[in-house]
Amino acid sequence: MKIALAQLNYHIGNFESNTEKIIKAITDAKSQGADLVVFAELAICGYPPRDFLEFSEFTELCDNAVKKVAEACKGIACILGAPTRNPNIKGKDLFNSAYFIENSEVRTIVNKALLPTYDVFDEYRYFEPNRSFECIEFQGVKIALTICEDLWNINDNPLYISSPMDELIKEEPELMINIAASPFSYNHDDNRYKVLSDNSEKYQLPLMYVNQVGSQTEIIFDGGSFVFNEKGEMLDHLKFFQEDLKVYEFEAGTIRGLEPGDYKPMEDVEQIYKGLVLGIRDYFSKSGFSKAVLGLSGGIDSAVVCALAAEALGAENVMAVLMPSQYSTDHSVKDALDLAENLGCKHEIIAIKEAADAFDRMLEPVFKGLPFNVAEENIQARSRAVIVMAFSNKFGYILLNTSNKSECAVGYGTLYGDMAGAISVLGDVYKTQVYQLANYINRDREIIPVNSIVKPPSAELRPGQKDSDSLPDYDTLDALLYQYIELRKSSREIIEQGFDEEVVRKVLKMVNIAEFKRYQTPPILRVSPKAFGMGRRMPIVGKYLS
Amino acid sequence: MKIALAQLNYHIGNFESNTEKIIKAITDAKSQGADLVVFAELAICGYPPRDFLEFSEFTELCDNAVKKVAEACKGIACILGAPTRNPNIKGKDLFNSAYFIENSEVRTIVNKALLPTYDVFDEYRYFEPNRSFECIEFQGVKIALTICEDLWNINDNPLYISSPMDELIKEEPELMINIAASPFSYNHDDNRYKVLSDNSEKYQLPLMYVNQVGSQTEIIFDGGSFVFNEKGEMLDHLKFFQEDLKVYEFEAGTIRGLEPGDYKPMEDVEQIYKGLVLGIRDYFSKSGFSKAVLGLSGGIDSAVVCALAAEALGAENVMAVLMPSQYSTDHSVKDALDLAENLGCKHEIIAIKEAADAFDRMLEPVFKGLPFNVAEENIQARSRAVIVMAFSNKFGYILLNTSNKSECAVGYGTLYGDMAGAISVLGDVYKTQVYQLANYINRDREIIPVNSIVKPPSAELRPGQKDSDSLPDYDTLDALLYQYIELRKSSREIIEQGFDEEVVRKVLKMVNIAEFKRYQTPPILRVSPKAFGMGRRMPIVGKYLS
Repeated sequence: MKIALAQLNYHIGNFESNTEKIIKAITDAKSQGADLVVFAELAICGYPPRDFLEFSEFTELCDNAVKKVAEACKGIACILGAPTRNPNIKGKDLFNSAYFIENSEVRTIVNKALLPTYDVFDEYRYFEPNRSFECIEFQGVKIALTICEDLWNINDNPLYISSPMDELIKEEPELMINIAASPFSYNHDDNRYKVLSDNSEKYQLPLMYVNQVGSQTEIIFDGGSFVFNEKGEMLDHLKFFQEDLKVYEFEAGTIRGLEPGDYKPMEDVEQIYKGLVLGIRDYFSKSGFSKAVLGLSGGIDSAVVCALAAEALGAENVMAVLMPSQYSTDHSVKDALDLAENLGCKHEIIAIKEAADAFDRMLEPVFKGLPFNVAEENIQARSRAVIVMAFSNKFGYILLNTSNKSECAVGYGTLYGDMAGAISVLGDVYKTQVYQLANYINRDREIIPVNSIVKPPSAELRPGQKDSDSLPDYDTLDALLYQYIELRKSSREIIEQGFDEEVVRKVLKMVNIAEFKRYQTPPILRVSPKAFGMGRRMPIVGKYLS
Repeated sequence: MKIALAQLNYHIGNFESNTEKIIKAITDAKSQGADLVVFAELAICGYPPRDFLEFSEFTELCDNAVKKVAEACKGIACILGAPTRNPNIKGKDLFNSAYFIENSEVRTIVNKALLPTYDVFDEYRYFEPNRSFECIEFQGVKIALTICEDLWNINDNPLYISSPMDELIKEEPELMINIAASPFSYNHDDNRYKVLSDNSEKYQLPLMYVNQVGSQTEIIFDGGSFVFNEKGEMLDHLKFFQEDLKVYEFEAGTIRGLEPGDYKPMEDVEQIYKGLVLGIRDYFSKSGFSKAVLGLSGGIDSAVVCALAAEALGAENVMAVLMPSQYSTDHSVKDALDLAENLGCKHEIIAIKEAADAFDRMLEPVFKGLPFNVAEENIQARSRAVIVMAFSNKFGYILLNTSNKSECAVGYGTLYGDMAGAISVLGDVYKTQVYQLANYINRDREIIPVNSIVKPPSAELRPGQKDSDSLPDYDTLDALLYQYIELRKSSREIIEQGFDEEVVRKVLKMVNIAEFKRYQTPPILRVSPKAFGMGRRMPIVGKYLS
């Protein structure tokens, strides 16, 4: 039997385009002789549909779209992720399901048992967990069909009390199929590989895994659908960060014609680069926009964002606005201009002094000669936001935020100033990783001026200001932040690792008091296992511990 | 036996103050002869602790605080909400628990079975549901002890497949005790009353219910702890929106010395008023701030916020900044000044023309004489934000946002302009309800100038602008929004109710395309059953249906 894996880029709630893509893939698979084509989890509506699922109109549209796909499914079978209604009066109203459709008829509906409800996941908010397990049967072959998390309960501290495969294996299936919507992070590929390998080895069955690809606001899917043999060895995988469709032959309990291969994961920096480019591109294309604006300072963060945006949208669709303050150095302007020229993107120069001076004069009767402090620094940063947002409002550009994760963490940024934007490109990329990205971007030629990379980071909002005046060096800062943000260690545990106690206390305090700022920042493209935003939900008014 | 109900205002993560309050209540209860004192759900750490629960440091501090309370619990017993560790390797690591402590010893730990995971609730994110049920026993009396949601599965479409009381009743308890952290909304009191009454009637047991009081960022708790007899009749309740402690006598299966009373719920407008005042007060006191700043336009929204802030913080701690534009009318400035005078709060007048003109000049080379549009309107709104934030940065004022729910819904507001602020006071109050609040505030004397109430609403960002130019009248708009936001009806269903089709389509489209704006607005004090913010999680990049 020939089985096609269809790895597609869905758009949440866009039933027209999703259905069209799915039907086209069915046609493609059929033309390649496939008997069965497998689509991802919640393929029909995109993932995560979030509170759309609370609108009965939405689930009706899902039903209608499934009917359309079923009609197109003639002379072939398909497995298709979609929400379905729970017929039981007790429990949540919906299931997260996999339709098994053969010759236009729904043969079985399999429901997800393990509902991820942590980090960016909220599945128990919407779905009732499945409690009864049965294999599907196609052309005489018993298939253990599961949905994403159903396979992930395979570790030493399992998150769930049951394991669907432990039930399904009792029916002696010949093949496992898992449909997923498993978000990307730079370390996700390693975990995923291990989980899939462990499952196929434990149950001694070949495994076909189909993931989504594409970006949904902040959540990026990298694709990378996999095929494993019954010994836990990888046979093949689909493309990363792209749509793909491939047909495999399954016969007599085994996948034919493929030898176990070595899996060489991409370098983290390349994964992050590709993830961010996809994230920007899909944010714009799925929102119906094409042009971006950003403030270009001559520093490394905005330079990297500008290069990523040029790659994602085309340089001709990127407007870089240089907004020097009276404290900006000449070389900053030159570095920014060099970058714009290297990329070939549009640029404008608008000095902010006139607006900043106007505010200073207007506030003089109230401030009465009080010394220059963060108030005046922020007036400059906010004047810049007024300017780039005016570009957005006048010409339809979408503002890209250029703050990095280290800054977001310690609150080193101005709310309604440089923290503005429709989407944050680097908000999940630590400063040390931004340097890696810059070098990656420059791998073939100098796109980002070396000056932007080597000079000491500065906000240039007062004379001679440098990041290192108020922050430890970024190697130390990022290592410390990783312990607190990603690993959720206490100050005591972090200090025990050898970090300076005073620095730890100061930095953790900065992180905590910046919660109110982060609440109002744009959605952040997620590339790490713990990004700020929907996956990290901290109290704002609370007494912090560290 | 004498049972005290302790309804306290906790502060998330502030173990020192929570423990002190709890121990003081134990002392008070003991001095009134109580044998048992009952505290709310997660009293030890405050509710909701959110991702604090993922830090092992946090749960250790919970354990230590419980130990301290236990030590103080001599010659008396207590029931106390706290997280505990799940000893089973399988499942989530924590339970949402009730300690039963007698004479400084932990006698029993009861775990919550039904974990609300909808709207603002995320309990399954952290907790494993309880699956084994046993009554506690105190002085020979069997008590069915449950935690909040455990009693709420009592309707025609239950959200959970099990019901803890159906298990506990088999042991023939004599009394039900429920500890809760049940957030306020203006219709919550009616639901709560019915659920409690239905439970006591169904199980024919008296019921004591203890809720939290106080506000935690956006979530407000109204207190209102209740005592019901075994016939579903209310015997008594504690105060609303205040701390309270009361002692009841339970003897021979019944609560002594109280007659069933009529429950007269507060009017919605009074509930909302008291909720918002508590919300502002606790936001400031729990954050360690005391002074507020806001932009006062002469319109009704900022007037109501100013009055609420003066009530919550004292008029002397409120700074109202009047920032007329060249399109502001003279009467707007006069109305704003009248209000500041009526309240006795501080004020400053700073015209924004100079800054707006500076931006216009700076952008002239780029805008090249393009006609005045939303770009220039937003420059004015954002210039105001720069000014009030400069007050905040220079003097330590906290900015109150003054947008109402109708505006938030349709995106009628400027991001980084009038949508700025640390906390949104009216973001869950429709414009029609703002008028009710204004009249309530004026119930004894004219505080809010009648002019601000009767004049047609306008943003005054271009000549002669009125809200009604681009929006239907607020009676229609709010009724329509209620169907979509609170009831999640489709456009078809709303049109079938008699709303004009064109208006419905236009308004729903406005609501949908404003998701990206709402993502970046401040936390909103929640007073309705469906507030924008953490309780309503919509995709930003998605194709909307209506």
